[in-house]
Amino acid sequence: MHNDQPTSRRTFVSTLAKAAATSMFLPAPLLSHARPGPVSQPSFSVQQVMDLMLKTIPGAPFAKTVDTLKSGDPAQRVTGIVSAMFATTDVIQRAIALKANFIIVHEPTFYNHADETDWLKNDPVFRHKHELLTKHGIAVWRFHDYWHAHQPDGIRTGMLNTLGWASHVDPANPNVLTLPHTTLGALIAQTKTKLGIRQVRVVGDLAQSCQRILLLPGASGGRNQIAAIEKAKPDVVLCGEVSEWETPEYVRDARQQGQPLALVVLGHILSEAAGMEWLVPWLQPKVPGIKVTYVASGNPFVYV
Amino acid sequence: MHNDQPTSRRTFVSTLAKAAATSMFLPAPLLSHARPGPVSQPSFSVQQVMDLMLKTIPGAPFAKTVDTLKSGDPAQRVTGIVSAMFATTDVIQRAIALKANFIIVHEPTFYNHADETDWLKNDPVFRHKHELLTKHGIAVWRFHDYWHAHQPDGIRTGMLNTLGWASHVDPANPNVLTLPHTTLGALIAQTKTKLGIRQVRVVGDLAQSCQRILLLPGASGGRNQIAAIEKAKPDVVLCGEVSEWETPEYVRDARQQGQPLALVVLGHILSEAAGMEWLVPWLQPKVPGIKVTYVASGNPFVYV
Repeated sequence: MHNDQPTSRRTFVSTLAKAAATSMFLPAPLLSHARPGPVSQPSFSVQQVMDLMLKTIPGAPFAKTVDTLKSGDPAQRVTGIVSAMFATTDVIQRAIALKANFIIVHEPTFYNHADETDWLKNDPVFRHKHELLTKHGIAVWRFHDYWHAHQPDGIRTGMLNTLGWASHVDPANPNVLTLPHTTLGALIAQTKTKLGIRQVRVVGDLAQSCQRILLLPGASGGRNQIAAIEKAKPDVVLCGEVSEWETPEYVRDARQQGQPLALVVLGHILSEAAGMEWLVPWLQPKVPGIKVTYVASGNPFVYV
Repeated sequence: MHNDQPTSRRTFVSTLAKAAATSMFLPAPLLSHARPGPVSQPSFSVQQVMDLMLKTIPGAPFAKTVDTLKSGDPAQRVTGIVSAMFATTDVIQRAIALKANFIIVHEPTFYNHADETDWLKNDPVFRHKHELLTKHGIAVWRFHDYWHAHQPDGIRTGMLNTLGWASHVDPANPNVLTLPHTTLGALIAQTKTKLGIRQVRVVGDLAQSCQRILLLPGASGGRNQIAAIEKAKPDVVLCGEVSEWETPEYVRDARQQGQPLALVVLGHILSEAAGMEWLVPWLQPKVPGIKVTYVASGNPFVYV
């Protein structure tokens, strides 16, 4: 910490009283603002950045969450921040090239929700990735549960901005939108263009009319998706990912029973990526002097 | 039971001693064979058909299994049997048209693995389906864990037959095949044609060479899929379904690290359907006088 000798502590103590609720540290950048004369480069540890972010999340820190540090040291100085959906091997290499040693990701790093690694300890793919992170001193923090708990949900906010749909949200249910009448085919074309999606999987009739949209980014699970459909009674559900024996079969049954319900599976990554892109303008003002960069992990699939 | 008064029990008692291990009932068709003179129509209850099938499964009945009766009465007389991947609303209606009141399915009926229905009791789609089944007296039995436990695995056997790959199986690992050298693109084209698949999702390079195939129908889960990859070291994995943050990210990392591993996601239903089609020639000889019909539920997705 370079700026831990302020000439005047009093000016910022009241500000900190609320702000530092989740932190054991005095945030360095606030101290630097309080110092007169030439300002040296602000400095943040990984822990300080995490604390700054968690201060904004209602109820944080959570007793139980997958949002833990997957590699790196909480005390290490942050040289740059990358926001990404996944810390793929390629994203890690791009972070290294950017001289950024802190990657904030929405999704797991080690191929399972809890990022458990015992079962992978002899796996060559895991070992290669783990050694790459260790060799270059890269911290990886998952920011999934917290970002969804942000008010408003950080992923949904980024998605609505990119889709240009923020003004269409139902005030009673932020997952529901009422759009001007269109066809399912036209809605899909618009969505694909705005999100950069090459292909979607659809249960529905492209000619059917739709207006009431249920937007469920990510993979919220069959019960949650079906409960949300029951509640919202949408014309079409736009979701990230499904288990095939759950929501698609529910929608197929609904259609075979005569309901004009449709399901569009966008793909997990591009159904949420705009929310991690939106993290950059949200986080950058909180960490002056540290560059925050969005790196697209992209969709791994080609369609044949 | 129409044939419960045999003129000669002795002739079939020894046969039954082994055969009836899992049954509380004497199988009616064996009785009918023992009867001289005009043979009346054999008759089976749902329970008897289940018992006949379970007799062939090592270790059955299992203490814990999802393979339970989802609707209907074990004592009801079977008028006809339908084998299907899913008892969709449409498959139920086709069973009714076939005058078949017993549907044997590989997958859940009510949109969750355990077919729990408490959470659905006010759901209109569930209620419509449940009422359709009840009104027409249709029994639905899941035959998933048992069919995979059959020696050999009933799903894999049907898939290998349809793919024409049975002779290429590695004797040491029945999920692994060594095919003549080909490209990934040619392998996919061949697989799509044989299985009637319109489209697959691929992590890989269509020009890459492949010979060693890991075949994992259905959705066996990320840990199982990754452990199977570690063990088999294939060129390409053909699987039914994935969670996007699990196996696809593992394969993407492997590729970014220089491994020429590829993943082809066939879609859950068509990765296993041939195994439920193969149930017909397997089951038909066991239930003389009852027609067993395969009904394709088909893949619900269109690709846009």
